[in-house]
Amino acid sequence: MPANQQILLDNRPDGEATVNNFKLVTTQTPALADGQVLVRHHFLSLDPYMRGRMNDSKSYAASQPLGEVMIGGTVGEVAESKNPKFQPGDKVVGMGGWQEYSVVDAAQPGALRKVDTTHVPLSHYLGAVGMPGVTAWYGLVKLINPKAGDTVVVSAATGAVGSAFGALAKARGCRAVGIAGGPEKCKYAVEELGFDACVDYKLHKDAHSLSKALKEACPDGIDGYFENVGGMVLDAVLLRMNAFGRIAVCGMIAGYDGKPMPLANPALLLVNRIRLEGFIIAEHMEVWPEALTELGQLVGSGKLRPRESVAQGIAAAPEAFLGLLKGKNFGKQLVKLI
Amino acid sequence: MPANQQILLDNRPDGEATVNNFKLVTTQTPALADGQVLVRHHFLSLDPYMRGRMNDSKSYAASQPLGEVMIGGTVGEVAESKNPKFQPGDKVVGMGGWQEYSVVDAAQPGALRKVDTTHVPLSHYLGAVGMPGVTAWYGLVKLINPKAGDTVVVSAATGAVGSAFGALAKARGCRAVGIAGGPEKCKYAVEELGFDACVDYKLHKDAHSLSKALKEACPDGIDGYFENVGGMVLDAVLLRMNAFGRIAVCGMIAGYDGKPMPLANPALLLVNRIRLEGFIIAEHMEVWPEALTELGQLVGSGKLRPRESVAQGIAAAPEAFLGLLKGKNFGKQLVKLI
Repeated sequence: MPANQQILLDNRPDGEATVNNFKLVTTQTPALADGQVLVRHHFLSLDPYMRGRMNDSKSYAASQPLGEVMIGGTVGEVAESKNPKFQPGDKVVGMGGWQEYSVVDAAQPGALRKVDTTHVPLSHYLGAVGMPGVTAWYGLVKLINPKAGDTVVVSAATGAVGSAFGALAKARGCRAVGIAGGPEKCKYAVEELGFDACVDYKLHKDAHSLSKALKEACPDGIDGYFENVGGMVLDAVLLRMNAFGRIAVCGMIAGYDGKPMPLANPALLLVNRIRLEGFIIAEHMEVWPEALTELGQLVGSGKLRPRESVAQGIAAAPEAFLGLLKGKNFGKQLVKLI
Repeated sequence: MPANQQILLDNRPDGEATVNNFKLVTTQTPALADGQVLVRHHFLSLDPYMRGRMNDSKSYAASQPLGEVMIGGTVGEVAESKNPKFQPGDKVVGMGGWQEYSVVDAAQPGALRKVDTTHVPLSHYLGAVGMPGVTAWYGLVKLINPKAGDTVVVSAATGAVGSAFGALAKARGCRAVGIAGGPEKCKYAVEELGFDACVDYKLHKDAHSLSKALKEACPDGIDGYFENVGGMVLDAVLLRMNAFGRIAVCGMIAGYDGKPMPLANPALLLVNRIRLEGFIIAEHMEVWPEALTELGQLVGSGKLRPRESVAQGIAAAPEAFLGLLKGKNFGKQLVKLI
């Protein structure tokens, strides 16, 4: 039985999350029961939704229990199997959590899925061809539902969701405009991810100034907006939305630490007859097969070349996660475990 | 040619609208050209949307030109006709504006519509069986789309839109809860309009306090909300919305004078996966026939007994309109002209 390093949620944040909310422990992996599979994790996914789970308050996701392994998506390799459907060496994606190994009851539907790494690198199943990619797909296709020629905008444009959004929007003939923090990310969004333009929000001290930059990047206004951040960015975008625009609200990371984050002018939702909808991708499992097929093709054909920020070793996960919340990552944030 | 008293928009409000923004003039009605109809107005409709028209700034409705007769819905009687489809004595509804007579090019589609006053009093074609009623119908049926047993809430519950909303919601087996200002309006909402409960927002100094009262009135949470006012009321309702709730945004009268009116916690739209949509009923003409049929039946059968606030004479219109913006009216605000 190999030793298994795990990260537990030790206590809940009071305001901003810190490394002291987490605790690293080492346990032994247990012997397998019939039907179970031991997975050795190659990569752990870090995602903004985890911050919501750390709170005790009512949130859209269940609270993460204290003293248990932090929840999280993982990709890895079957190390040992007492389930006839899985063989040692199989590449698998699951929700193994912040630890080096997980024991999975593989008979449970959706608990473990074999993946093909011929055309898609294993880590991308946590990003572009995984939950973040499907999130972008749902917001764009089901909520924004653009026509060719529409202008669509995404915040956190170089992140895992944003980069998939850009490729999906270009595949539909849209003008795709990103919002990101800093010249390096904006350059990357345009040159590598295929965005038509990218606005650096860090150059703007208020929503009015940012909305002027958006006007230049979106000369025909904004028809659809995919929201990952909230706050000043949402205020600025609302000033540029066209009549009958659609806003898909996926995240409001700017407010995850409990800071008040009001919307300055909600009357614009009426004035421009906006439809805005919040969603959680786990509640729309019916779209996953169609979305994953398209995303796999975009990655396989090189039309979507997502970038990754990779932290090394399980002990680095808390620091990398806190960096993600501040936008320090560049592309999909992963932790490499072997 | 009869003399015609008219109210013009003389200048635009700087902040709050005042009687000095309007000007009363007297003109002569012109001789009719072929195809035209002279209508003597019995009632003029006063509606919150008119406040938006008084501004020069970009709004969802075209700006009202200075020096012209204020726009507005009217019901009346044909006084003279050079159009074969209309005879003197016909009861008609149109957009005659703030004046005693209008000359209508009756060949223009939708300009003038004959109505039957056998079961529905003429004035109701400006309220429950007119634009406000259809507005309530669209928000409830097309945007909130409730099932029997859902809890739906409307602000400005005793107004023309709110009272129709209550009757339409009860006809669908919903729990209908109103929000209104003062004990008299709340009593009327429950006893005469058929709401299951009504919350007096004037008893509450902040959104948190109002949301507690909403919790009592809506023990199973809120599935659908029809927004007429904005501000603190919207903040309070958002705290009580159920997952997958729908919000139809029809008006935000609290902000019509240009006061900043932020939304305190937009993250709740995500947490509860809310769908919110702003709309203008004039852009959904396709629903009018179906909506007017149901509304006419509700009024004809006595299931919807809308109340009216009636000001006397065209000169009283500005004062009555300003009162409407402050919620001084009780039910549909009209001006009786003869």
